[in-house]
Amino acid sequence: MRLLEQRILRDGKVRAGGILKVDGFLNHQMDVELFAQLAKQWHAAFANDDVNKILTIEASGIGLACIAAQEFGCPVLFAKKTKTKNIDGSVYKTQVASYTHGTTYEVIVAKEYLLPTDRVLLIDDFLANGAALEGLCDLVHQAGAALVGAGIAVEKCFQPGGERLRSKGLRIESLARIKSMTEDSLTFMD
Amino acid sequence: MRLLEQRILRDGKVRAGGILKVDGFLNHQMDVELFAQLAKQWHAAFANDDVNKILTIEASGIGLACIAAQEFGCPVLFAKKTKTKNIDGSVYKTQVASYTHGTTYEVIVAKEYLLPTDRVLLIDDFLANGAALEGLCDLVHQAGAALVGAGIAVEKCFQPGGERLRSKGLRIESLARIKSMTEDSLTFMD
Repeated sequence: MRLLEQRILRDGKVRAGGILKVDGFLNHQMDVELFAQLAKQWHAAFANDDVNKILTIEASGIGLACIAAQEFGCPVLFAKKTKTKNIDGSVYKTQVASYTHGTTYEVIVAKEYLLPTDRVLLIDDFLANGAALEGLCDLVHQAGAALVGAGIAVEKCFQPGGERLRSKGLRIESLARIKSMTEDSLTFMD
Repeated sequence: MRLLEQRILRDGKVRAGGILKVDGFLNHQMDVELFAQLAKQWHAAFANDDVNKILTIEASGIGLACIAAQEFGCPVLFAKKTKTKNIDGSVYKTQVASYTHGTTYEVIVAKEYLLPTDRVLLIDDFLANGAALEGLCDLVHQAGAALVGAGIAVEKCFQPGGERLRSKGLRIESLARIKSMTEDSLTFMD
C-alpha cells in the first residue's frame, strides 16, 4: 500500500538491531486518519469472508483493530498479557516470545468472548518473527473458531514469521512489506 | 449518558472487592459502535477547546482514545508501561499505582510527541482512585502542554479519584457515574 510505504519512508527511522521506529504514527503516537485508510484496505481484502470478530494483542494492535472493526461492523477482542482481577471464569492462554523485549509472556482471552461460531480476523501492527501472530492463531484454534486471516500493517519480510505462517495456510494481508533495511536505506517488496 | 448506563446494567457484573466487570463491551471485548457514541459525547463536551491531541494509557484506554480521536480529527498518544527498545530519545515518565494489580509501574511518553503547544484531552475507560489519570496529568504538566480535561467512560464516584482531581481544577466528563454498587444492585448519580 503506497500510502503506508510513503509514510514509513518519510517518518520511519531504522535503528541498530533491525528496529524500525514508527512510533510517530503507528504504535506510540497514532494517526487515526491513516489507520482508517489501512482499515479500508483490510476490509477490501476480507470483505467476503463474513468476519464477525477482530482479535488483536495488547497494546499497539488495539488502535488499528478498533478502527478496522468499524469497517467490518464487528467487535474487537484483545489478548491480555497478564491475568488481572477483572477477568474471571475460564480463559484460553498461550505463550508468546517477545524478541523486542527478550522475554516470554502469557496472553489470555476469556472463553466467553471467543466462540466456535466466530469468524476471526487477526489484526496487528507488525509481523516479523511471527510469535505474537502465532499466539493469536493458537487462541483461535483452541476456541474452535474459524480463522479467516490476518491484516498486518508492516511486515519485515526478511524475518521468518510471514513465510512460516503462510506455509501453515494462514492468509496474511500486509500493507507494507519491507524487503530489506539498514540505517541508510529501506526497500519494499514489489 | 443513558446508553452507557443501560449497557452497564445489562452486561456489567459486580464482583467482590469493588470490581465492576465490563469486559464484554469496554475493556477486553470492545463494542466499537458503542465507543463511537461515547466519542460523540466527549466531542460535544470539548468541541470548543481546540483539542489537538488525545492522551491515554495502555492498554484499555487505547480503543476509546482512537475512536474519540476520529471525532476530534487529531492523533492519539498512549503512555507506555515499560521502556522498550523501540522508544529512544528522551521521555517524560511518571509513576502510577495500580490498585487492580497491587503494584506500582512507570509509564512514559516520548518528549517529541507531547509538545508545549499541544492542547491535550485525556481519555480512559475508568476513573476510580485516579492514579492513572493523575499520572497522565503529570505527563502533560511536565511537557508544558495545555490540559483541556478528561473524558472518562465509567467513574466510580464512591472512590476518591474524581473528587481529588476535580478539586485540583481538572475538568472531567464521565459518561456513567456510579454512586454505589454491590453484587445485587448498582445505582448511578443523578
